[in-house]
Amino acid sequence: MTVFVLASQSPARLGVLRNAGVDPVVRVSHVDEDAVMAALPADTAPDRVVVELARAKAREIAGQLAADPAFADSVVVGCDSMLLVDDVLQGKPLTPEVARARWAEMAGRSADLLTGHSVLRLRAGEIVAEAADCSSTTVHFAKPEPEELDAYIATGEPLQVAGSFTLDGLGGWFVDRIDGDPSSVIGIGLPLVRRLLAEVGVGIAQLWVGRPA
Amino acid sequence: MTVFVLASQSPARLGVLRNAGVDPVVRVSHVDEDAVMAALPADTAPDRVVVELARAKAREIAGQLAADPAFADSVVVGCDSMLLVDDVLQGKPLTPEVARARWAEMAGRSADLLTGHSVLRLRAGEIVAEAADCSSTTVHFAKPEPEELDAYIATGEPLQVAGSFTLDGLGGWFVDRIDGDPSSVIGIGLPLVRRLLAEVGVGIAQLWVGRPA
Repeated sequence: MTVFVLASQSPARLGVLRNAGVDPVVRVSHVDEDAVMAALPADTAPDRVVVELARAKAREIAGQLAADPAFADSVVVGCDSMLLVDDVLQGKPLTPEVARARWAEMAGRSADLLTGHSVLRLRAGEIVAEAADCSSTTVHFAKPEPEELDAYIATGEPLQVAGSFTLDGLGGWFVDRIDGDPSSVIGIGLPLVRRLLAEVGVGIAQLWVGRPA
Repeated sequence: MTVFVLASQSPARLGVLRNAGVDPVVRVSHVDEDAVMAALPADTAPDRVVVELARAKAREIAGQLAADPAFADSVVVGCDSMLLVDDVLQGKPLTPEVARARWAEMAGRSADLLTGHSVLRLRAGEIVAEAADCSSTTVHFAKPEPEELDAYIATGEPLQVAGSFTLDGLGGWFVDRIDGDPSSVIGIGLPLVRRLLAEVGVGIAQLWVGRPA
């Protein structure tokens, strides 16, 4: 059976996969994201940026696993999410001040959540196939009341997530609608991963835990 | 503090609320849904049907709680979800045969997931305010491969859910995109509940567990 490796420490991505029947092996990459971005041409399109970051993460983990026979038949999936607001890519706000400034900008408007995906197929230590693409979803934000936004930021939840919001947590109260794939907003797009896995020769039903096809 | 009561046995609805910071009291209604629908005029619009079903559930539970001082200050939320495919409302398929027939109809197409919401505010045993509305979301279904659909139906997951699919489970692999609110597709729409709660005078941040506003 093909081993599914998630090259991410994101509990949200792990949760999406587990709810969807896949219990991946988790390996956390330590890619220098700033260095990856700095190495790209300045005019690189935003959807390309997140794909290159996802690929860098997947490649680092694939390199680590190459010598391990437990991963002789495996797929490594890397992802990177950012919010595109007024043509600027935004990652995690990290501080309450930045989260507040971003919500002042986002509230009552829409922005595009981009998630880059990289899927690498490993066979006997070699990368034998590779597929990658970006999932883009438009997110329409509500206008939280000032006391709601205060309470939300005080929970700390928005500080460590791309775009300063979650769709599947407290932030869900403040997203009126989306146009696109909700799992890609949470961090890993199931329909896109299904397509990329098919491109490297893996069917998703065979990955479902305890439910071999 | 206002007690939040969910008038539903749906684990999916409970999960959405818990992830969004609310740990509701769960009370399961035993409304005869067929009788409620039969009592409506034949030309009742689909979005009205699901709202009336939601209201019937919330009203039954509110009646049960009226005499209990623990619920002297409470809100009761009822929901009902159905999938509108070619102008026909579809509930749970219940059998593999029905699920298979519905997927043959849905695959590669779109349909509208309607979730009716009813919010009742209780004060000292009386319903003092009421708000209700429907959240409608267009769901674009992928075309599962025959072996994927076989494996999906064999898991049993689609049999007990409105519209024969889940967005937050195995079914998520087979939903390419949505236009609308993903939480309403799972079964309870957070932005709509926020609006309806505001209409009856309750702010959502004050319901967040351990995070009083």
